[in-house]
Amino acid sequence: MTVHAKRIADSTVRRLSMYLRYLEDLDQEGQTTASSDALAQLSGTTPAQVRKDLSFFGSFGKRGLGYPVHELTTRLREILGLAQSWRVIIIGAGKIGSALAEYRGFRQRGFTVVGVYDNSPEKIGRAWGDATVRDIAALATDVRTLAVDIAVLAIPADDAQHVVDDLVAAGVRAILNFAPSQVHVPTHVAVKHVNMAMELEGLSFALTNRGD
Amino acid sequence: MTVHAKRIADSTVRRLSMYLRYLEDLDQEGQTTASSDALAQLSGTTPAQVRKDLSFFGSFGKRGLGYPVHELTTRLREILGLAQSWRVIIIGAGKIGSALAEYRGFRQRGFTVVGVYDNSPEKIGRAWGDATVRDIAALATDVRTLAVDIAVLAIPADDAQHVVDDLVAAGVRAILNFAPSQVHVPTHVAVKHVNMAMELEGLSFALTNRGD
Repeated sequence: MTVHAKRIADSTVRRLSMYLRYLEDLDQEGQTTASSDALAQLSGTTPAQVRKDLSFFGSFGKRGLGYPVHELTTRLREILGLAQSWRVIIIGAGKIGSALAEYRGFRQRGFTVVGVYDNSPEKIGRAWGDATVRDIAALATDVRTLAVDIAVLAIPADDAQHVVDDLVAAGVRAILNFAPSQVHVPTHVAVKHVNMAMELEGLSFALTNRGD
Repeated sequence: MTVHAKRIADSTVRRLSMYLRYLEDLDQEGQTTASSDALAQLSGTTPAQVRKDLSFFGSFGKRGLGYPVHELTTRLREILGLAQSWRVIIIGAGKIGSALAEYRGFRQRGFTVVGVYDNSPEKIGRAWGDATVRDIAALATDVRTLAVDIAVLAIPADDAQHVVDDLVAAGVRAILNFAPSQVHVPTHVAVKHVNMAMELEGLSFALTNRGD
C-alpha cells in the first residue's frame, strides 16, 4: 500500500513511530491485543487521536477487542518503510557523525551505514568503526555505486547547502540535517532537521514564559 | 514581558528561532530593515505567517517600511529567553554527550555547561573538556548548588525515567531528552525530545510513500 506522504502530517508520522515502539514491547511480552487507551497513555496522547491516526491506514482490529498487537506491528513497520533496509551515508566524521554511526537504534531498525565522508586530510583514510573515512570529493560517484538512500549531514552550517546540492544532483532523495542551517531542496527530496541549539531555545522560551 | 508559553505552539517558537538567526546575519551585514517577504523566504515560510508569528509579541516596525532589524533581533532574543544565560548539565558522558558539550552553538547562545554526569566508574573523575565527569549519585545535591536550569539527557532509554524523576525532585524545570524513550513529567516541567531514530523513520516513511 502506498499512502500520499504529503497529506500525512509529520506529527502523525512521529506518533506512528511511537505506537510501533510500544507495540513491539507488548509483542515481545506476549500480549496479543492493545486498546487505544493503552496506546494513548504510553505515547502521551488521547485514545481518539490514536484511533484517528491509525484509521488513515485502513481498519485494524475489531471494535471493543482492541488492536491485534502482532498484526498492527507488522503493518506499522510496512507503513513506516521499515520492512526493508535503507542505505545511509554520514557526511562529517566528527563527534556527532561518530555518535550517529555507532547508534545501535539505527541498525536495529534497518538503517545501514555504508559510507562516511569528510573533507579534512587528517580524517580521510582513517578507520572509523567498520568503515574508512572517504574523501567528500568521491560523494557524487559513491552515491550511485553504493545506491545510497539517505544522507546524514553532520557538518558546519556554511558547507551544508553546497553538499546538499551535490547530494541531490547525485540522486539522494532523503536527507537528515544536523547542520544548524536551513537547506533548500527540490520537492521530490525529503529533509528533516535536527537543530540542537533550537531545541534548547525552545526550553529557554518555556523557562522565560512559564507565566509564574 | 511575559507571554503565556502554553498558548504559543512549538512550531511558532521554532520559527522565531529561525527568524532570529537570519536577523542576526542581516544585522552583522549592516542591514537596517527586513521585509516579511525576505524573512519568509529565508526561513521557508509565507510572509503572512511571519507577520502572524511576530504579531503575537506586540507590533514591530511600520507598515511598508519592513521590520527594524536591530530592534527586532533584541526583542526576539528577549522573547526566546536568550538575553540571559542558562546553566546546563549533561547526563551521560558518551559520544552524544561529548558532541553536545563541545557544540559551539550552545555557548554562543548563552547555554553554559556547568556539569557532566555518568554512572560508569570508568568515566567518573575523568577530565572532559573543561569539566570533570561526576558521579550521577551527586545529581540531586549538585542541581541545587549549581543552580541548574536545564538538564540534557544522553543516556540509554531504560534509565531515562528514573533519572528524570530525580531531576524533577531536585528542582530542574527543563529537560532536553536524547534518550530514545518518552518520559513523564509534571506540567510545570518543559521537555523536548530529540530522537534520531524517529527522524530517520520520518525519512523512510517519505521514501516509501512518495507516491511515484
